[in-house]
Amino acid sequence: MKIALLGAGRIGRVHARAISDHPLAQLACVSDAFPEAANSLAAEYGVPVMTAEDIFASAEIDGVLIASSTPTHCDFLERAARAGKAVLCEKPIDLDLARTRHCLGVLAEHPVTCALGFNRRHDPQFSALKQALEAGRIGELEMITITSRDPEPPPAEYVAASGGLFRDMSIHDLDMAVWLLGEPVTEVTVSGSCLVDPAIGEAGDLDSALINLKSASGKLVSISNSRRACYGYDQRIEVFGSQGMLEARNETDTRLRFTGVEGVVEERPQWFFLERYAQAYVREVGDFVTAWQEGRAPLAGAQDGLAALELAEAALISYREGRRVLLSEIR
Amino acid sequence: MKIALLGAGRIGRVHARAISDHPLAQLACVSDAFPEAANSLAAEYGVPVMTAEDIFASAEIDGVLIASSTPTHCDFLERAARAGKAVLCEKPIDLDLARTRHCLGVLAEHPVTCALGFNRRHDPQFSALKQALEAGRIGELEMITITSRDPEPPPAEYVAASGGLFRDMSIHDLDMAVWLLGEPVTEVTVSGSCLVDPAIGEAGDLDSALINLKSASGKLVSISNSRRACYGYDQRIEVFGSQGMLEARNETDTRLRFTGVEGVVEERPQWFFLERYAQAYVREVGDFVTAWQEGRAPLAGAQDGLAALELAEAALISYREGRRVLLSEIR
Amino acid sequence: MKIALLGAGRIGRVHARAISDHPLAQLACVSDAFPEAANSLAAEYGVPVMTAEDIFASAEIDGVLIASSTPTHCDFLERAARAGKAVLCEKPIDLDLARTRHCLGVLAEHPVTCALGFNRRHDPQFSALKQALEAGRIGELEMITITSRDPEPPPAEYVAASGGLFRDMSIHDLDMAVWLLGEPVTEVTVSGSCLVDPAIGEAGDLDSALINLKSASGKLVSISNSRRACYGYDQRIEVFGSQGMLEARNETDTRLRFTGVEGVVEERPQWFFLERYAQAYVREVGDFVTAWQEGRAPLAGAQDGLAALELAEAALISYREGRRVLLSEIR
Amino acid sequence: MKIALLGAGRIGRVHARAISDHPLAQLACVSDAFPEAANSLAAEYGVPVMTAEDIFASAEIDGVLIASSTPTHCDFLERAARAGKAVLCEKPIDLDLARTRHCLGVLAEHPVTCALGFNRRHDPQFSALKQALEAGRIGELEMITITSRDPEPPPAEYVAASGGLFRDMSIHDLDMAVWLLGEPVTEVTVSGSCLVDPAIGEAGDLDSALINLKSASGKLVSISNSRRACYGYDQRIEVFGSQGMLEARNETDTRLRFTGVEGVVEERPQWFFLERYAQAYVREVGDFVTAWQEGRAPLAGAQDGLAALELAEAALISYREGRRVLLSEIR
Repeated sequence: MKIALLGAGRIGRVHARAISDHPLAQLACVSDAFPEAANSLAAEYGVPVMTAEDIFASAEIDGVLIASSTPTHCDFLERAARAGKAVLCEKPIDLDLARTRHCLGVLAEHPVTCALGFNRRHDPQFSALKQALEAGRIGELEMITITSRDPEPPPAEYVAASGGLFRDMSIHDLDMAVWLLGEPVTEVTVSGSCLVDPAIGEAGDLDSALINLKSASGKLVSISNSRRACYGYDQRIEVFGSQGMLEARNETDTRLRFTGVEGVVEERPQWFFLERYAQAYVREVGDFVTAWQEGRAPLAGAQDGLAALELAEAALISYREGRRVLLSEIR
Repeated sequence: MKIALLGAGRIGRVHARAISDHPLAQLACVSDAFPEAANSLAAEYGVPVMTAEDIFASAEIDGVLIASSTPTHCDFLERAARAGKAVLCEKPIDLDLARTRHCLGVLAEHPVTCALGFNRRHDPQFSALKQALEAGRIGELEMITITSRDPEPPPAEYVAASGGLFRDMSIHDLDMAVWLLGEPVTEVTVSGSCLVDPAIGEAGDLDSALINLKSASGKLVSISNSRRACYGYDQRIEVFGSQGMLEARNETDTRLRFTGVEGVVEERPQWFFLERYAQAYVREVGDFVTAWQEGRAPLAGAQDGLAALELAEAALISYREGRRVLLSEIR
Repeated sequence: MKIALLGAGRIGRVHARAISDHPLAQLACVSDAFPEAANSLAAEYGVPVMTAEDIFASAEIDGVLIASSTPTHCDFLERAARAGKAVLCEKPIDLDLARTRHCLGVLAEHPVTCALGFNRRHDPQFSALKQALEAGRIGELEMITITSRDPEPPPAEYVAASGGLFRDMSIHDLDMAVWLLGEPVTEVTVSGSCLVDPAIGEAGDLDSALINLKSASGKLVSISNSRRACYGYDQRIEVFGSQGMLEARNETDTRLRFTGVEGVVEERPQWFFLERYAQAYVREVGDFVTAWQEGRAPLAGAQDGLAALELAEAALISYREGRRVLLSEIR
Repeated sequence: MKIALLGAGRIGRVHARAISDHPLAQLACVSDAFPEAANSLAAEYGVPVMTAEDIFASAEIDGVLIASSTPTHCDFLERAARAGKAVLCEKPIDLDLARTRHCLGVLAEHPVTCALGFNRRHDPQFSALKQALEAGRIGELEMITITSRDPEPPPAEYVAASGGLFRDMSIHDLDMAVWLLGEPVTEVTVSGSCLVDPAIGEAGDLDSALINLKSASGKLVSISNSRRACYGYDQRIEVFGSQGMLEARNETDTRLRFTGVEGVVEERPQWFFLERYAQAYVREVGDFVTAWQEGRAPLAGAQDGLAALELAEAALISYREGRRVLLSEIR
């Protein structure tokens, strides 16, 4: 499978490595708005630099991986679909709900293999949790608790363009909740604060939030978000049910343990997503290639991106208006 | 310190043992509406059975421990205060807010050493957590996560008289939140469901809840409650702040660990409150005795009972009306 | 059961508390070579000070607890047996093998309830391990690994009188090994060093040792001893068999856990035996009282003291001569 | 660096993958006594099959990786050295001490980059432990405890040709001990049994052993070996010193944890060396390539192979003769 890479930034480089290492995939070319970034990455893999136009026009290219800036996603997705190319797009599709829906309309008219970059669904541990859940290990699912904290707050200028905490950060947890629930969310209730960095509050955003979800059958989800955890990337999930509880825990570089006068010390969690989800990125590309080959849907698709964005939208309304928001108000 | 015990039921027996084992306290007598219960416990400790009247009238008795049924608490508290006796009363003061406030008025007029049975404040682990928090171990406190699940749902007839999930069960977690926050709660937001036992729903109550609190300075609290956890009494607290996180974890009978084909197996949490909080009950009586001797306030008093009941009241309104409830609406 | 206490030192005080708290036992009197120690402890419990003579002559006294200095043990044991009194004696019976055997001869002629203070057999965790072992949890037992390290080396003058590492410290681990094996040890092989404190080496002793045992059926035991562990009392046991492994782990004051930039930190092990085996001392007295009442043998008796001393003797020979020592050489 | 692979069996395939994935190395060709094995692996990587003769004669080839059967190792090592090719050889060099020494003589005459496959030195966790040890984390090293158990006993025919427990299995632990000690071992003392499989005993070997080492400065090492652990590959190391203790613990596939009526269950250790040391094999090839490029010695070389074999030899004598064996007797 020949894959063109759109976007040669940090996450683009991660995907380039995964494509290149995959036995059945091949990095065909690189494209980027910044020629320097494109040239450097292309040189590293010995592949040509191409324009987006040429990529979508090329008969040689089977799929595109969109890792460019968020505002370009919808356009690239639609062009890929119209060109009949498989596409793996970094989340989000778009920060605007209407624009996202329009994009999904185009995708519906031009059906191609379309994967969305909800990387966490591909994490080996969360994957094992999902499997155990479906195998009935905890009986009937009742509650999900997701703890998700970034190591450091982003710069204020990032916050401004990010769409805010819910659309930028919580969206991963909202998708995880929906995926684990296996049924639609019907209500969203939020409490939030700006506790980490006043600059975030001045930019009109919050940095600490508790998001409660309720599903169609009454299952409950608690998401706890913070823009800063001094000890690293805090990524835990607990699912609780009639027969027990399953916990996905933080990963560490090694399992070395020290015992001294200060106590029994284990390593702190891995620092951020590039370390924590290194394997997930590899598996994500693997799922994309296999889905294309087998003509099946990838583990996460455009529809999942819309669903998570709707929840983020509901969360924002709930936070602003101080009330439970029904998803029926959004859809 | 000579202490009379009002109530010879299960929890009364726990207190009798703690009083009897305390080097500076003495079980003076036992009283109970059921003569058999009173006789049996009194015989065990070689102390007389007395009526409540005689107890409050006796010049010999320094303090009373109220472990009788909830509807008797206010009356006994007020009589103890009027008789100038120190009092340790099981929670709650009353299920009704107005009645509780009236009782606090009487206590204000007749100041005595008055302790309320929020046993968890005396748990060695939570106590160490509170101390570490105050010592600045995690920097500035930002979020508290309390997981609190009973092993088994109570019978439907208990539920009916209990005041419901928030007043009966969550009230312990609400008090813990307030105690750890060290500042007033201003907002309450709740999501809830009946997932464990339909009979609880038919009795007009819920059995699964997520309670979010926000404090005056914007700190956030998430409480997760369930009336049933098949693996035992799930009692965990996590406090998160600018410099790190502290976790109080479930206790087990021993630290024995087995490794076999099925994995690495440690013991499940202790079954219920009598095991989990055994040390807390002993320390609670110890704190009561010392507070009386030193003329200082006990670790938990009547005012804390009122504060927790107000939060339970707010939680109930939030659940019913699907909105954020301000504490200023209750007070 | 009326019990006289011989020896009012540190460990005597622990036993006095356990006797006094036991519902069926009573501290009858205290005796000590130092009148001040005896007076002070006797006053604390409101009991008389008595001489050893009067104690053994008194018809009122059912049992004696020997917590006096090691050289007095044999004499007191023999007098107790001759006087027909139940006896709980701190370990060791004596540091000399011949003297110990003679004492056992006297005990055989005057059979009384005789318990030896191998406190670890009464530890709740080791007790649960022994039970699981006997219940077949790990199938056929094959190997035992005992880690046993003191927090701090004793003063050189203590070392001189202690009988050396094997008779003073390892003896507890040797007894534990025999108890868990459930069959006789036939071979002892030792490696040792003086690594902690040169003064110990100058006193002719060692402070670090690896003791290997082999039992009649070929089971293997590894004991690792050190006179100093900066993090506290290191007391772990691992038993390994055909169906798995069981581990008894170090105890901590609480289960509180901190996560910060320096890692995930749990408490270090409890400092020394008074903390670690607090419950074991209580249960030891409980077993003594029950054994006396029921006329059965206590969990550890004089014969166990001899067996452990023989192993310590074999260990010393193995260390000095650099060879495997057969127990048949000792017995 | 163009590397020829000698041996296309299970471990050869692991090395082929590592060479192929390394950015600076290239799998040049494959050789195997069984043409089918060679053909299949060569086809997979699109490289030619070559004879050993042609490989050693080829000017194109920079290095050889010897993963053929043990009896071929010395011959291939010597031919590689004489041909001036870098060589990474699976352990052991040979099971015979004299033959091994002769081989080292040849290597000394023809110095090439020579790495020996002590894979565990490259394990990320043991590597981190070694680094922490050298950084002084535990102060002065005093004791090392190595637990090393295979999941299943090998077939009896394997045992016969393996050189026995010490030369085949313990040799890895003996090398680890020497590497961590950082100083020569002077004494070996062993206790052993046949507890797992009588067929092993009938083949004249043992399957369970405790090996104690003592180093020049008196440091102690305890190695615990078993040919069978029902729960998987048990690979743990504990180093203990004046300032604390470091533990390398078993690895699991994920950190998922289940809590139910049966307790708190984590995954059992990874099954065997291919899973447990997957990363170590990759890093081993990486170290070999870098050592060749930089002209430095690899992390483990032929001399380390000899040192470990001498210890295995001493262990065998100690086991058979029931005595402490001085390394001076062997060297």
